[in-house]
Amino acid sequence: MAMRRQAELKENPRRRRTIRPLPPDEKHFASSHTHTQTHTLFTMAASERTTDLGRALCIITGASRGFGRTVARDVARLVEPGSALVLVARSGDELRALQAELVQSEAGRAGLVVECAVADLGDVDGLESVVRTSEKAFAKHMDHVLLVNNAASLGDVSRYAKSFTNMAEVDSYLSLNVSSSLCLTAKILQAFPQRPGLRRTVINVSSLCALQPFRSWVLYCTGKAAREMMFRVLAEESQTSGCSTILQGLWIRTCRCWPDPKQLIPVSGNHFQTCFLRASFSPVKSPVPN
Amino acid sequence: MAMRRQAELKENPRRRRTIRPLPPDEKHFASSHTHTQTHTLFTMAASERTTDLGRALCIITGASRGFGRTVARDVARLVEPGSALVLVARSGDELRALQAELVQSEAGRAGLVVECAVADLGDVDGLESVVRTSEKAFAKHMDHVLLVNNAASLGDVSRYAKSFTNMAEVDSYLSLNVSSSLCLTAKILQAFPQRPGLRRTVINVSSLCALQPFRSWVLYCTGKAAREMMFRVLAEESQTSGCSTILQGLWIRTCRCWPDPKQLIPVSGNHFQTCFLRASFSPVKSPVPN
Repeated sequence: MAMRRQAELKENPRRRRTIRPLPPDEKHFASSHTHTQTHTLFTMAASERTTDLGRALCIITGASRGFGRTVARDVARLVEPGSALVLVARSGDELRALQAELVQSEAGRAGLVVECAVADLGDVDGLESVVRTSEKAFAKHMDHVLLVNNAASLGDVSRYAKSFTNMAEVDSYLSLNVSSSLCLTAKILQAFPQRPGLRRTVINVSSLCALQPFRSWVLYCTGKAAREMMFRVLAEESQTSGCSTILQGLWIRTCRCWPDPKQLIPVSGNHFQTCFLRASFSPVKSPVPN
Repeated sequence: MAMRRQAELKENPRRRRTIRPLPPDEKHFASSHTHTQTHTLFTMAASERTTDLGRALCIITGASRGFGRTVARDVARLVEPGSALVLVARSGDELRALQAELVQSEAGRAGLVVECAVADLGDVDGLESVVRTSEKAFAKHMDHVLLVNNAASLGDVSRYAKSFTNMAEVDSYLSLNVSSSLCLTAKILQAFPQRPGLRRTVINVSSLCALQPFRSWVLYCTGKAAREMMFRVLAEESQTSGCSTILQGLWIRTCRCWPDPKQLIPVSGNHFQTCFLRASFSPVKSPVPN
């Protein structure tokens, strides 16, 4: 099994994003839960929600599999007719399979538009392609733009920090996992500027690794901590510009369980508008100093 | 003044690292202190120390000015005869002026070796040159290798996060401020492997910005949060390999004041050996969840 994984990684280094062992302290946690649940932050919130996502343009990165695919399925059920989903990932086949599934779903039959942006987010052209697809999918009657920054790669979790002497490797990891989410968010906020009647929501799918160090997870922990802080800055700025709702969720386990809403971490209490995520996020005090 | 700064930045974007306005909440803090102190973590610790730095090879990045220069001066006074300093920065003239000053100091007259590594840490060749200079400066009788990761650039602190659409700009910032410190640390740990009788200490000069978001400081906050987590992972790993002392200090104000040892943040209580920084670091509980 280990050899097969090594072979897969050698063939396609980015493939590792799909193979995600648990950080040490999540193992006990995971073993104490059944793995039959497929809740995401959206389904958790849906049971308590008083509002839905509206007529929304929803852009979801890393949508082809895992947590991102589950988010896409949930979002499709929560939006109003006249909405559009932009599914972003590198793997076109998986993305188009999800597109077909969603188009044939109840939401699809009710008119939900589902577009694919097959793009590498570690690449400038990839970002541009996501923005272009999003602009085309947007319609004037829409009242909500939602961006879910979910795409992330794992990096090599088999090596200690002292082995990372190759700058190109670290640079490439940070570009895909940190720079791209900042630049995509900035581009989407610029492409859909603030105006009356338009809600704009940005979500960062965070991780326990943003808060806690784990041995041999230096790239993943560093990238997640960087992203967490990046979106906290964006949230601070949204107080001034009043432009966005910024939310960060603690991602416990890919596409398996989202077991306890109390583990969701708000960026800062006063940025939470009356939106679909409020029920899950607002009662929780952040363990991160604000 | 603003125009002059813009012109300077245009001429040499990295010049911005030398111009460092205070984050908003540090302004009040700074204004309530006299700016006559030049304490660094080393001078603070020296008054309470029971041991000194030993016969040490001390590598200090960003040593040509500001906080790094002050650290270099303090280290020169704290090491035993037979030690060597490797001063790292891009600006050769300033580095050589400091070298001349230290060679003429009491420590220099007592035999302290001072070498310059004029290097851009955002560049692979720059890192290699620091390692080569360090290897040449190391002597068999030395019992301590100390690396101070101090070099950092400020980034553009005049713009909100939503303006950062240029991936090359963000990539370049993260490469210089995050990748380079990981790769340099890894290279130095490999170049001077663990052996009986050799102490190895790694210091990260951190910032309040690693813990708190500040409006318009997205690059700096993101980079410092990333570095903070990176060295926390390294510290976790040092428990297993028993190889290093990892310390992180909260950098309040460049080369002006280091007003309260309680503001120094230990990475994790159990990594602090009986070393010169112990007095400052060990009594303090980290505000970061461990």
